[in-house]
Amino acid sequence: MEVTRSNFKDNLNKVYEAIEESDFLAIDGEFSGISDGPSVSALTNGFDTPEERYQKLKKHSMDFLLFQFGLCTFKYDHTEEKYIMKSFNFYIFPKPFNRSSPDVKFVCQSSSIDFLANQGFDFNKVFRNGIPYLNQEEERQLREQYDEKRSQANGAGSLSYISPNATKCPVTIPEDQKKFIEKVVEQIEDLLKNEENESLELEPCTGLVSEITHLLKKKNLFWPYRIGGVIKKKKLFTWERYIVISKVNEEERKRREQQKQAKEQEELNDAVGFSRVIHAIANSGKLVIGHNMLLDVMHTIHQFYCPLPDVTFFRFNLFSYYFVSRLLDTKLMASTQPFKEIINNTSLAELEKRLKEVPFSSPKVESADGFPSYDTASEQLHEAGYDAYITGLCFISMANFLGSFLSPPKNHVSARSKLIEPFFNKLFLMRVMDIPYLNLEGPDLQPKRDHVLHVTFPKEWKTSDLYQLFSAFGNIQVSWIDDTSAFVSLSKPEQVQIAVNTSRYAESYRIQTYAEYVEKKHEDKRAKRKCTEDSWKEMERKRLKTQNAFKTATVGKRSMSPIQEETSSDDMEEEGQDPEYDQTDSCAESLPDGKKRAKKFKKIKTGQVPAGKSNVRAFDKPACCSES
Amino acid sequence: MEVTRSNFKDNLNKVYEAIEESDFLAIDGEFSGISDGPSVSALTNGFDTPEERYQKLKKHSMDFLLFQFGLCTFKYDHTEEKYIMKSFNFYIFPKPFNRSSPDVKFVCQSSSIDFLANQGFDFNKVFRNGIPYLNQEEERQLREQYDEKRSQANGAGSLSYISPNATKCPVTIPEDQKKFIEKVVEQIEDLLKNEENESLELEPCTGLVSEITHLLKKKNLFWPYRIGGVIKKKKLFTWERYIVISKVNEEERKRREQQKQAKEQEELNDAVGFSRVIHAIANSGKLVIGHNMLLDVMHTIHQFYCPLPDVTFFRFNLFSYYFVSRLLDTKLMASTQPFKEIINNTSLAELEKRLKEVPFSSPKVESADGFPSYDTASEQLHEAGYDAYITGLCFISMANFLGSFLSPPKNHVSARSKLIEPFFNKLFLMRVMDIPYLNLEGPDLQPKRDHVLHVTFPKEWKTSDLYQLFSAFGNIQVSWIDDTSAFVSLSKPEQVQIAVNTSRYAESYRIQTYAEYVEKKHEDKRAKRKCTEDSWKEMERKRLKTQNAFKTATVGKRSMSPIQEETSSDDMEEEGQDPEYDQTDSCAESLPDGKKRAKKFKKIKTGQVPAGKSNVRAFDKPACCSES
Repeated sequence: MEVTRSNFKDNLNKVYEAIEESDFLAIDGEFSGISDGPSVSALTNGFDTPEERYQKLKKHSMDFLLFQFGLCTFKYDHTEEKYIMKSFNFYIFPKPFNRSSPDVKFVCQSSSIDFLANQGFDFNKVFRNGIPYLNQEEERQLREQYDEKRSQANGAGSLSYISPNATKCPVTIPEDQKKFIEKVVEQIEDLLKNEENESLELEPCTGLVSEITHLLKKKNLFWPYRIGGVIKKKKLFTWERYIVISKVNEEERKRREQQKQAKEQEELNDAVGFSRVIHAIANSGKLVIGHNMLLDVMHTIHQFYCPLPDVTFFRFNLFSYYFVSRLLDTKLMASTQPFKEIINNTSLAELEKRLKEVPFSSPKVESADGFPSYDTASEQLHEAGYDAYITGLCFISMANFLGSFLSPPKNHVSARSKLIEPFFNKLFLMRVMDIPYLNLEGPDLQPKRDHVLHVTFPKEWKTSDLYQLFSAFGNIQVSWIDDTSAFVSLSKPEQVQIAVNTSRYAESYRIQTYAEYVEKKHEDKRAKRKCTEDSWKEMERKRLKTQNAFKTATVGKRSMSPIQEETSSDDMEEEGQDPEYDQTDSCAESLPDGKKRAKKFKKIKTGQVPAGKSNVRAFDKPACCSES
Repeated sequence: MEVTRSNFKDNLNKVYEAIEESDFLAIDGEFSGISDGPSVSALTNGFDTPEERYQKLKKHSMDFLLFQFGLCTFKYDHTEEKYIMKSFNFYIFPKPFNRSSPDVKFVCQSSSIDFLANQGFDFNKVFRNGIPYLNQEEERQLREQYDEKRSQANGAGSLSYISPNATKCPVTIPEDQKKFIEKVVEQIEDLLKNEENESLELEPCTGLVSEITHLLKKKNLFWPYRIGGVIKKKKLFTWERYIVISKVNEEERKRREQQKQAKEQEELNDAVGFSRVIHAIANSGKLVIGHNMLLDVMHTIHQFYCPLPDVTFFRFNLFSYYFVSRLLDTKLMASTQPFKEIINNTSLAELEKRLKEVPFSSPKVESADGFPSYDTASEQLHEAGYDAYITGLCFISMANFLGSFLSPPKNHVSARSKLIEPFFNKLFLMRVMDIPYLNLEGPDLQPKRDHVLHVTFPKEWKTSDLYQLFSAFGNIQVSWIDDTSAFVSLSKPEQVQIAVNTSRYAESYRIQTYAEYVEKKHEDKRAKRKCTEDSWKEMERKRLKTQNAFKTATVGKRSMSPIQEETSSDDMEEEGQDPEYDQTDSCAESLPDGKKRAKKFKKIKTGQVPAGKSNVRAFDKPACCSES
C-alpha cells in the first residue's frame, strides 16, 4: 500500500494494527544520497573497526534525507501454514507545517538521485505529497509552544481567544477612525448588557480588530464576547465584509476551549506525522528485519529521534532508548554459517533468487485482504516497500532452513525460535574483511591483523604503484584509506616484518605494521587529550592567579576545572535522581528533555555505565564469527 | 519550448540561433533553496552594504542547485512593429556521465521545495531528464583525461585500443585456462598471417580479454588486430556470447582513430551540456534582462563557471571574465525614477499587471513559428521560462514608456537606446533600505546612516522589547542582524545621540551609532589581520632561528616570509607574462587554467588592479539613485 500525506491519517490505524498483530516486521529505506565526503571505497575501508565505520557514516551520511520508508509486516497463520503480509510504502518529506516550524535542509547526491531516477522513483510523490515528521526535540518544542499559548490564554482571560495578534505590537488608534472604533466598543457594551441579543454585526470594515480589542482591554472587557471571523455578504455586484461579535457563555467557552485543544492536539499529531509509525514500531517490541540495515537504523534514529550519539551510547542504548527490541540483518545472516557456504552473492536481489532453489524453499506468503501483492517475477527493486517485502521473504526461507537441522526437522521456524537468536542485534558491516558485524550486545570481534601493513605514500600513487612496491610478496590486497595511505594485506603474515624492515630507509613511502599503526593512533589520541587537558589547566591556573592577584575570595564551586566538571560526582548523583531514568521502555510518549539526554551522553562518554542499566550480556562467540 | 536531456542536442542550434538574432535576452532561474544559514530576514538585513549582501549570499546560497533555467529571446520586427520571442525552459541536473565524473552534492531547502511543489513544479523531469553540465574546471579536467588517454594510446601502439583495462592490474592467468588462452593467441597469430580471413570468432567465453591481451603483449603483438565487442548469438533456448577478433589495416586504423576522436569530442560536448548555452549567452554580447537577478547571476557563475570570487573581483571581472556584457534588472528599473512614483509593487506578477495599465501599454509580442506561446492571463509563474518571458515584457513596457518623454515621443525604444543606459549593470538589492543596488561599474552608494543605531541585547529579546526600549523616540524601524543584535533606525537623526547617552549605564543591552559600529568592525578586521601577520612573523622568526642554530646556509628564496610571498613582485611580473592575460573577451572557448586564475584572485585581493584591465568607468550619479 502506498502511503502519502493524502491518505496517511486515514490509514494510520491500519498501520498500527498491522504492527501489533505481526510476528515480525521488515523495513527498508531509500535515501537522497550515501556519502557527502569520501568516495564509497574510502568510506568503507576493508579494515575499518566497527566504531570507525559508525563514525564515518555518522559524519558523512546523515545530511541526506530518508524519503521513502518500506514496512512489511508478517503474521503467521498456523492453520493455513502460511504468512499473511501487509506492505506499506511511505513517502516522506519534511514539509514545513507553519511559518515557525523547522525548515529542514537536506543534501542530494547526484549519483544516488540518478540511480533512483533510473529505477523509476517518483520524486514528485515525495516532494508534493510526502508525509511530514518531527524528531523528539522538534516535537517537544512544538508542544511547548502550544502549552505556552494556552497558559497565556488562560492567564490573560482568554486574550488570545479574542485576537491572536493582540499583544504583538503597540496599538495606536488612527485619529480618523477613533470615532468609529469608540462607537463599536459602545455597541459591544450594549450587546453584553442586553440579554436578548446574542450577536452583533459591525458595519462593513475589514481591519481594526486589534484597535477594537485594545479599547475593550482598557475597559477590562476581555470576554464574554467573541470577535468571530469575518463574514462576507453579497451586495449588488460586490462582496462586503462584516465582523461578527457574539456573546459567549461560560459553558460555550469551555466547549470551544476543548474543541480548540482537540484541534491543537490533532495539529501536533499531524506535525509529528510519520514519526508516529516509527514510535509504534519501537513500542511494539517486535523483531525488526532489514537487509544490510546499519544505515537504515542510523538514519531512522537521526531523522525521527535525535542526532546520533557516539557508538558506545548507540550500542548500549539502542534498545532501551530509541528503537525496537531486536534487530536482525538478513545480509549478515546470509553471510554466516550455515548459509555462508551455500550462498555466494548476498545482494538482496540475488539472495532472493538463490533462496528459491534447493536446499531452500520459497515460503508461502500471501498479502492480506485489501493489500496489493507484489510479483517477485517483475522486480520492483529499490522501492522501499518491495525491498522490505523481499527482505522478509529471505528471512523466512533462511529461518525455515534452520529447522531442517532439527530432529525431527521442522518446516516452519517462527520469529520467536531460539534457532535465530544467534543472529540478533548484529548489523552487517559492508566490505569489512574480517569483522562481519557491529555488535549491539557486547564488544566487537577483535580479529588478528598480523598480515596487514599500513602504508603512507605520495598522493600521486595509484594501486598499481602499490602492486609494484609489493611485487616480491605474492598476492596482496589494497584497501585505500585516503589519497596518501592504504592498508595492504599480505598473504603470509611472516612476511610482514620483512616488508617493514626493507622499507626502513625509503624516502617517499613509509610502512608500519597494523599493530604499530593502532598503537600510534591511540598515542596521538592520548596526546591530544592531554594537550587539551593541559591547556585547560593552564587557563585555569592563569585564571586562579588573576583571581588571587585581585584577592577575590570566590574560589569555590566556580573554580572547579572543566575537566573535573566533566566527571563530577555531583553530576552522577543528579543523574540518579532523574525520575525518568529507569524508564527503559520506549520514550515515544514520555520524552525526557534535551538536557537530561545530554547528561546521559556525558556519562557514557566518561565510560561509566549506570547501575541497573547494564544490558551487556556475557559475550559468547557467535555463530556468525568467521575465522579470519 | 521545454528542453530536457532528451531533446537538448537536437535543439541546441535553435537556441544558438535565437540568441544570435535577438535584440535582448531575458533569463530566470529556479533553485532548490535560498539560504542554508540564517533566516531570510537575517540574510537580507535592511542595512547590509552591497558587499556584505554579496558575501552572505555567497556563503549561504550557493550549495543549492539551479535546476531550471528560463531563457527568452526577443527580436524586434521593424516592419510589423512587434517583438518576436522565443522562449526556452531548460531542466538542469548534474547527472554523472561516467564513473570518474564529478558526483555533485546539492542542498534542498524544504520550504523552497514545498513552494515549487505547490506551483506544480515537475521534479521528475529535473531528476530523470535534466540536462547535465560542467563548470570550467571540470571541463578542463575531462579534456585532460581525454588528451592523456589519447597520448597514451599513441605512445603505446594503440594499447588502449585493445583493451581499456589492460594495464590496470597485474594479470595472472588461471592454471585451468592457460591452454584455452594459448590456443586463442595461436588463432590470432594465424589470423594475422593469413591474408584471406578478416576476422575470427572465439569459442564461447565471456571474460579473459585481459588475459589474452596480456599474452599478446608479451609477444609484442599490440595490433593490427582488434578485440571487438562481445556479440550474442541465439542458440536453441539461450544466448551465447562470442568475442570477435578482426584485422585492422593502417588506413582502417586511422579512420577508426578519427571516428574515436570525433566521438570523444561529442562525449565532451555532451558532458559540458547546458554550460554551452551559458557560454553562448556570454559570447553573444547581448543585453541580458532579469528580475531581481543578483542571485540568478551569482548561481550562474557558481554553477557553470567556477566558485564565486570576492565581491571586488566579481564586480570588476563579471564582464571581461565570465558573463555577458550588459545586465539590466527590471526590479531595479521599476524601483527607480521615473517608475518609482507610479509603481507600488515591484514583484514580478504585480509589475506585469501594472504595466498593462495607463500610462503604460502592453507591448506587441508574438512567439516565433514553432514556439509555443504563453498566456499571461493563466499565470504560470515560477516556471523559469515563463518568468523570463514576463520579465522581457516588463522591460519592453518600461523602455517604451521612457520614449514618451522624448519630443517627438517615440512608441518603440530599443534595447540599444541611450535612454536605458542608466539602468545598466546595477543589480537590485532585496530589502536594503537605502542602497537600491549593487553597482557593477563603480563604487556603491554611500548613504548617510546618521539615524541608525546598532543595538546588542540578550538573546531572549524580541521585537517588542526593542519597541519598548525606544518607546520615547516615536516611530522606529528594527532590522534584525542575528539573535542578539539589530539595527534600529529612528525617525529623527538628532535623537541618536540622546539614545546612546541614556544607554551608557545599561547592563543588559548596548547602543552605539552606526558610524561607531562600522569603525569598530574595521578596527576588528585590522586587528585580526595584524594578529595573523604577527603570528606568521613569529613562526618565521622561530624558523630562521632554528635554521641559524643548525648553521644551514640555505637562507635564500625559501626563507621568504609568507607575507612577502603574498605580495611578491616576482609574482606580479610573472603575471604580466601571462599570454592569456589580456584576453578580456569571454573565456568560453580558451580557458585559462586554475593556477592562473588563482593568481589573478591574489592580485585583486592585494588591491592592485592590473594595467589595461581597468574597466571602472567614471562614476556618474545614476538616474536610479534614490535620495535616502
